[in-house]
Amino acid sequence: MSELKNDLLLRALRREKVERPPVWMMRQAGRYLPEYIALREKYDFFTRVQTPELAAEITLQPVRRIGVDAAIIFSDILVIPQAMGIEVLMEEGKGPLLPKVIKTQNDINSLFTDAVEEKLDYVMKALALTKLELNGEVPLIGFAGAPWTILCYMVEGKGSKTWERAKEFCFTQPELAHQLLQKITDTTIYYLKAQTKAGADVVQVFDSWAGSLSPEDFKRFAQPYLIQIADALKDDAPVILFPKGSWYALKDLSESSASGLGIDWCISPGMAREMTGNKITLQGNFDPAKLLLAPAEIKKEVKKMIQEFGVQNYIANLGHGITPNIPVDHALAFVDAVKESF
Amino acid sequence: MSELKNDLLLRALRREKVERPPVWMMRQAGRYLPEYIALREKYDFFTRVQTPELAAEITLQPVRRIGVDAAIIFSDILVIPQAMGIEVLMEEGKGPLLPKVIKTQNDINSLFTDAVEEKLDYVMKALALTKLELNGEVPLIGFAGAPWTILCYMVEGKGSKTWERAKEFCFTQPELAHQLLQKITDTTIYYLKAQTKAGADVVQVFDSWAGSLSPEDFKRFAQPYLIQIADALKDDAPVILFPKGSWYALKDLSESSASGLGIDWCISPGMAREMTGNKITLQGNFDPAKLLLAPAEIKKEVKKMIQEFGVQNYIANLGHGITPNIPVDHALAFVDAVKESF
Repeated sequence: MSELKNDLLLRALRREKVERPPVWMMRQAGRYLPEYIALREKYDFFTRVQTPELAAEITLQPVRRIGVDAAIIFSDILVIPQAMGIEVLMEEGKGPLLPKVIKTQNDINSLFTDAVEEKLDYVMKALALTKLELNGEVPLIGFAGAPWTILCYMVEGKGSKTWERAKEFCFTQPELAHQLLQKITDTTIYYLKAQTKAGADVVQVFDSWAGSLSPEDFKRFAQPYLIQIADALKDDAPVILFPKGSWYALKDLSESSASGLGIDWCISPGMAREMTGNKITLQGNFDPAKLLLAPAEIKKEVKKMIQEFGVQNYIANLGHGITPNIPVDHALAFVDAVKESF
Repeated sequence: MSELKNDLLLRALRREKVERPPVWMMRQAGRYLPEYIALREKYDFFTRVQTPELAAEITLQPVRRIGVDAAIIFSDILVIPQAMGIEVLMEEGKGPLLPKVIKTQNDINSLFTDAVEEKLDYVMKALALTKLELNGEVPLIGFAGAPWTILCYMVEGKGSKTWERAKEFCFTQPELAHQLLQKITDTTIYYLKAQTKAGADVVQVFDSWAGSLSPEDFKRFAQPYLIQIADALKDDAPVILFPKGSWYALKDLSESSASGLGIDWCISPGMAREMTGNKITLQGNFDPAKLLLAPAEIKKEVKKMIQEFGVQNYIANLGHGITPNIPVDHALAFVDAVKESF
C-alpha cells in the first residue's frame, strides 16, 4: 500500500487525516465516455467484461480522462449468478435477463458455490493487469453485488420497479430465501477475498435495491449478509457498503466492520453524519442529475457538498451511477471541484 | 358530514377518538378487481375516467367488494395537464405519454389555468353521482397530483426512473420551474376546491415522485407548493399529503395545514411518529408486496402494523397502490384485519 502515489482513498477509509477528500464516481467507466462507446461498438458486453485487456483498458479510461483518485474494475454484479450456474443475458441498453429464475429448493441445491475462482478467473486477471498498468497511480476498487440485490435478479429474472416476485419469495418462503442469501454470501466473500489477492485495494458492495425493503425486512433479508461480508473481509481490505436508499440502516451499519458507507442524495450530509455518529467514513452523495448543470454551477454544488460532509472521513462521489447523457467536461468539473477546493 | 353512517376517516383526520382505525387502499378501484377488468375490456382509459356513470361505478366497486371505510374517486392525476392544454395519451398497461413536453417560457405561457371547471366538469359530475350512490355509507375522497409530480410528467413526457429531464429543467431554469409549479398549484387548488363542492369529503395530494428529490431540492421544488395547497384547502376539507419516499420532510409537513400525511413502508411507524411528534394523523404504510402472503399472514402483519402506529390518529392503508396481481381475497384480508382487531 505504501507504493501508492495517491493513497487518499485508503487514508480516508482508515479515518486518517487527508489534505482533501478523495473523489471517484460510480459508473465512471461508462457510457458518457466516447472512448468507452468506441470499445462498446466493437465488443459486446460480456466480451468487454471477460477479456482482461478490455476490462483493464475500460477501467483505466476515467483515471486518464477525468483524473479520479481511484479506479474501479470494469465488471458486473451479475457475474456471481453466472459463476453459480445461472444464465445471464445482457441486451445493450436494455438491462439483464436471467431466463431461468430461482423458485424451489432444487433450484437452490443446484447452484455452484465452489467454482468461483476458476469461473471468475477473468476478473482476477483483469484486476492484476489493471494493477500493473496503474503503476501505483491510484488505488484499485473491486466490487460485488450485495446478497439481497443478487437474489432480486435471481428470483425476478430481470429489473423491476417493485421487486415484487423477489419479495414474495422472501416473505412466503423465508427459509429458502435465507438459504439462497447465505449461498450468495459465501460465494461473494470468496469472490471478494480473491479480488483483494488479485490486486483490489478496497472493495465495495452494491446493494442497489436495498431501498425497496422496509426497515424491518432490510434487517431480515439484507443487513445480516452485508455484516457477514464486512466481517469476513476486514483483514483483507477496507469495505465500503452501499445500501442505496436504506437511510434507516445507517446507524446499524456504522457499527459494522465496514470502513465506509455509501449514501444517496435522499439524505442530507448532516443527517447522515448524525445517524452514523461520525463513526464511519461516508461516501456520496451528489445527485447525478446535478451533473446536467453548467460546469461552474457543478463546482459550486460540489463545494457546498464537501462543506456539509466535512473534509475528513469523507469520499466525494455521486449518490448513484453517472448516466450516459452527461458531457465529459461536466464529469471533469465534478472531479476538479474537489481538487480545487484545497 | 353528520349524514355519514361511517365517519371513521373524518374523525381520524380531525384527531378525534375512534373505535378502530379507518381503512382504505390506494388504487383500491383497480386491476385486481374482476369487475374492474370487465369494464376495462369494454371502455378505454379516458372513457372510463370521463364518463361519470363509469367512474362512479368503478369508485363504488371496492366499497361493495372489500368493504373499505372510504371511496376514492376513480380518475387520474394527469387530468390536470390535460385541462391545462397538454395532450395526454394512455396506453393500457404501459403508462402515460405526453407527446409535447414543456421546455420554454412560451410553453408555460400557453397553458390554460382558467378552464378547469369546464374542462374537468366530468370529474365533478362523477363525484356528485358517486356521492349520491354512496348514500352516506362512507366518505368520498377526491384527489390531485402534487405540483412536482405533475411537472415531472409535463417536462419528461412519460415515466422515468430518474426524472432527469424534469430535474434538469428545475436545476438549470429554476425561475421557469417555479412559474410552472405555481401555475399547476393554482390550477390544482381551484380543482380540489371544486371537488369538495361537488361532494369530496377529503382530498389527497399524491406526490408520487417526491422521493427522487434530495431534502434540499424537495424544499425548493415540492414542499412550498404542497403547503400552499394544504393552506388553501383548510376551510374546505381535510387534506392528506402523500409525498412518497420523502421521509425527511415529515417533520415540516406535520406542521402544515394538512390533516394527514401518507407514508410508504420505507420508514417504520415508530420513526414516523417520532418525526411528526404525533402532531398529525398518519396514513399507511403496508408494503403492497406483503399482500402476496397468505390471508392469515396478511392479517398478522396488519395487526402488527396497527400496534406500531397506534389506534388513534391513524388511517390503515398501503404504502403505495395495490398491484394488479393481488387476489381479491388478499385485499379483503387486509381490510378485514383492521375491522377484526377491535
